[in-house]
Amino acid sequence: MYRTHDCGQLRIADVDKTVTLSGWVQRVRNLGGMTFVDLRDRYGITQLVFNMETNAELCERARKLGREFVIQAIGTVTERTSKNKDLPTGDIEITVNQLNILNKSDVPPFTIEDNTDGGEDLLMKYRYLDIRRKPIISGLLMRHKMSLEVRKYLDAQGFMEVETPVLINSSPEGARDYVVPSRLHHGEFYALPQSPQQYKQLLMVAGVDKYYQIAKCFRDEDLRADRQPEFTQIDCEMSFVEQEDILQIFEGLAKHLFKEVKGIDMNYQFPRMVWQDAMEQYGSDKPDIRFGMKIHDVTAEVKGHGFKVFDDAEYVCAIAVGGCANYSRKQTDELTEWVKRPQVGAKGLVFIKYNEDGTVKSSVDKFYTPEQLTEIAKKAGAGTGDLVLILCGKKMPILNAMGTLRIEMGNRLGLRDKNIFAPLWVIDFPLFEWDDETQRFYAMHHPFTSPKKEDIALLDTDPGKVRANAYDLVINGTEVGGGSIRIHDSQLQVKMFNLLGFTQERAQSNFGCLINAFKFGAPPHGGLAFGLDRWVAIMYGCDSIKDVIAFPKNNAARDIMMGAPSLIAPEQLDELSLAITPEK
Amino acid sequence: MYRTHDCGQLRIADVDKTVTLSGWVQRVRNLGGMTFVDLRDRYGITQLVFNMETNAELCERARKLGREFVIQAIGTVTERTSKNKDLPTGDIEITVNQLNILNKSDVPPFTIEDNTDGGEDLLMKYRYLDIRRKPIISGLLMRHKMSLEVRKYLDAQGFMEVETPVLINSSPEGARDYVVPSRLHHGEFYALPQSPQQYKQLLMVAGVDKYYQIAKCFRDEDLRADRQPEFTQIDCEMSFVEQEDILQIFEGLAKHLFKEVKGIDMNYQFPRMVWQDAMEQYGSDKPDIRFGMKIHDVTAEVKGHGFKVFDDAEYVCAIAVGGCANYSRKQTDELTEWVKRPQVGAKGLVFIKYNEDGTVKSSVDKFYTPEQLTEIAKKAGAGTGDLVLILCGKKMPILNAMGTLRIEMGNRLGLRDKNIFAPLWVIDFPLFEWDDETQRFYAMHHPFTSPKKEDIALLDTDPGKVRANAYDLVINGTEVGGGSIRIHDSQLQVKMFNLLGFTQERAQSNFGCLINAFKFGAPPHGGLAFGLDRWVAIMYGCDSIKDVIAFPKNNAARDIMMGAPSLIAPEQLDELSLAITPEK
Repeated sequence: MYRTHDCGQLRIADVDKTVTLSGWVQRVRNLGGMTFVDLRDRYGITQLVFNMETNAELCERARKLGREFVIQAIGTVTERTSKNKDLPTGDIEITVNQLNILNKSDVPPFTIEDNTDGGEDLLMKYRYLDIRRKPIISGLLMRHKMSLEVRKYLDAQGFMEVETPVLINSSPEGARDYVVPSRLHHGEFYALPQSPQQYKQLLMVAGVDKYYQIAKCFRDEDLRADRQPEFTQIDCEMSFVEQEDILQIFEGLAKHLFKEVKGIDMNYQFPRMVWQDAMEQYGSDKPDIRFGMKIHDVTAEVKGHGFKVFDDAEYVCAIAVGGCANYSRKQTDELTEWVKRPQVGAKGLVFIKYNEDGTVKSSVDKFYTPEQLTEIAKKAGAGTGDLVLILCGKKMPILNAMGTLRIEMGNRLGLRDKNIFAPLWVIDFPLFEWDDETQRFYAMHHPFTSPKKEDIALLDTDPGKVRANAYDLVINGTEVGGGSIRIHDSQLQVKMFNLLGFTQERAQSNFGCLINAFKFGAPPHGGLAFGLDRWVAIMYGCDSIKDVIAFPKNNAARDIMMGAPSLIAPEQLDELSLAITPEK
Repeated sequence: MYRTHDCGQLRIADVDKTVTLSGWVQRVRNLGGMTFVDLRDRYGITQLVFNMETNAELCERARKLGREFVIQAIGTVTERTSKNKDLPTGDIEITVNQLNILNKSDVPPFTIEDNTDGGEDLLMKYRYLDIRRKPIISGLLMRHKMSLEVRKYLDAQGFMEVETPVLINSSPEGARDYVVPSRLHHGEFYALPQSPQQYKQLLMVAGVDKYYQIAKCFRDEDLRADRQPEFTQIDCEMSFVEQEDILQIFEGLAKHLFKEVKGIDMNYQFPRMVWQDAMEQYGSDKPDIRFGMKIHDVTAEVKGHGFKVFDDAEYVCAIAVGGCANYSRKQTDELTEWVKRPQVGAKGLVFIKYNEDGTVKSSVDKFYTPEQLTEIAKKAGAGTGDLVLILCGKKMPILNAMGTLRIEMGNRLGLRDKNIFAPLWVIDFPLFEWDDETQRFYAMHHPFTSPKKEDIALLDTDPGKVRANAYDLVINGTEVGGGSIRIHDSQLQVKMFNLLGFTQERAQSNFGCLINAFKFGAPPHGGLAFGLDRWVAIMYGCDSIKDVIAFPKNNAARDIMMGAPSLIAPEQLDELSLAITPEK
């Protein structure tokens, strides 16, 4: 037997017990006649003690142990003279009388400590050593706990987990598929699922009633920070439900997770915000409501005073940044440059300083009287001491830019505390998005999303105004999931395809199986999917989803630890009837 | 709200309640003035009743409902006059006063009944309708329950679930990989995992200590009955363990599952059998021990009596088939033909009828005296009334053939009751398999499997005799899982690679990451993996794993419902820098 206890287990009550521990050498300290070894495993750290006086030979061997050696120690649990209150095992130590080296270790390429000296590439290359570090393994443990609690909650609600296939057929809708050549069927390919969307709707037709799955999904995207080619979704679908049923059940799931994983009781109904308000007040369909600084429309107030930029603009909006009226010229100049970055996309920035003494100072003083500026500042929600930031342009792009600026100011002012969690349902999304370039409507969610009953008439007259039975769960400004009530009426579905410009052939070739299935008694149904990686990252308080994925790929979709992707043997290509064409 | 209750929920205590139910029309029966509709959902069937006298219009509408229409019915729970004891809801019915058709249905291509009239292809094409049938949805529910219980048990044991990647690197060892072309990295490919083997060993190096995952695995095999290109494994690995620890933990898992899923208490230690005995006594490394009919070596008894076939054979073995001494000539002839089938591979069959009256009759009477035949029969374990079947040839192939014949006789005699479960650990597998064709050793399990300590010396002298720390869990003659203690000593690993004929380059290119990881303090570790599909099928008592997979592929690896694999657009191939070469 390699161990009787793990390295996080022993307490003062265990004193005098003979125990066997196994683990990794965290560090060795020689203090005169005594040698202390910190022995580490997933569960904790236990101090081993060796005494030069009582057993010189053993103590000598302990002194020679290297970092990350794997050892087994047999000894007696002893009360420490100087206790370590920071360590759960800090009251005791093991007086060792037998020491076995189970495996040696080369010197690791970085220190296995909470704060390591390894750079990102090195940590990823040696991810198996990185995981030994507490910040990483704790994140993976939280992920495990979250998955398990998701399953417990949904099981208790009568959901059944169904595994849907990973080798499916390619669908040209949506993002790019990863494909898998078939050896048995010449020239044909499977695709990896971007989500189990069609399968879960088929499961509703199949009468599964309440389905969930924690499912791997795949998307072949171009390089983008903090996106992974494979990611994990909590995928759910229910029959005989309306939007309200779904919001209730999954608000319950969120509360269960916050309670079980973070110990946070959320004894209140999550706020709900219609998409239109989210856009107009927060400049985002995923508002961070941990702080205010709402956006205000000041178009009427600023127009007609001879300032051409505002007079020509479709939309002018403002935020009030609390307590920043004292910003220096340098600071406002820097902010002006910041909003001009292509990621923000504003043409410029106008500010009003609403000083503590009630006076105003702005970058447009020559066009507005102090009274007018005060009125604008008040409209923007400012009080004395606040800084008002104003952007103008086309309505939606400028709201987006203001939303980005708002988040930036929230960050700068420390208003986005990782230990505060502010969930929010965003509802009433538009059914369609108009694309100027191709001059057609696209489904904002997907083509099976149902319109609101009261908006169905608008499908014929003003499709852009139709609201969908679609909803997102947003936490701290991040969308953790979303979904919709689906169309189960085949007449309405046909209308939907028409509006989206699908020919019958194209609808049939992309969604033929589902369309056909709907002929055989499809129940009313709806669902949603959560991004597990993202949700765990928010709960764990880390910035990147990579931190909560055991073996993530880098931003170029490479696993640099294993070396994937890689070349394959010519015989493998031959068997698949494939040839590689020159790079373009 | 679509429903207040589901269709399996209402009981006599609910009488007089006003309820709303939704579901599918199972059938409509018109009995004079009354019309009965069986309303079905995942949870059960509830009878709706319509009365021509009290509401003719509603009753007329009910009569027009087609099979599989989706309806909503509002009414009052009423006690039935003639109760149905076979139905949990059989004491009540719903006197309907409002009926809404939620969706119509075309006539389904087969009947949605426990025994359907659909053929396999039709059932697979319309799998979403097949799943509505109780035998299918119940299997999927059992699968859900088993997965959940696996997680509960392992979580309670301190295991953590870790998701390993699906896009990994191709390894030419083992079966054929499915590969995934990379668009971002010209000419390179990911592979889909045949198992998370290397990742789970890396997780042990990473200090995860106790890992599990219910993981999708992939194997691009040639057509084979009841194999699926994607399948699901319960994959587990532990550190600081010996074989006995693993057998204990996972015997516990098996008992937990039998208890929770089947209600069977297995309050005994699972029998264990060394591989050598399994082969010699059952002609299989996965013996079905629900019945005896053990194989006996009769080589010594049959040789030297002038029967050249036996005299020339390396090995002669026999089984005693209980109560079959009265087999007719036609029956023994048929058996002789049966063993000559290529799947069995014997050259012929010799039999001895050990009659009830103590006389013997055999197909080799002219070479053996009745006393000699009696002696052989007794050696084969026969009593009076039994039929002794004898095969001869090279030892291992003929033991395999006899194992196949034994299972066949077990089937014919009804000795393989699906409701009896006989688990068995097969242990002490050989470390190597010798391949005559390539004249070299192959790893029977995989190249990281550790030899038994006491056999390590044999590595230099007689590698074929070395036993591995490897084990399989067998239930009713099916291997449901297996694994091994791994090598964690790099010296021993090098020796292993040498014996397997790996050059250092090849070892490095196939297992480089793992070999490198082992330099940084690999703990002693081992694990195993169970085939979830197979295990559920055994528990559920069905013959094919397809029955317990929601959307299986057919034997040609095709999803005929969705139409995968399929052709992809030329632009997709272009983006991947791939061309399809002519079929060979």
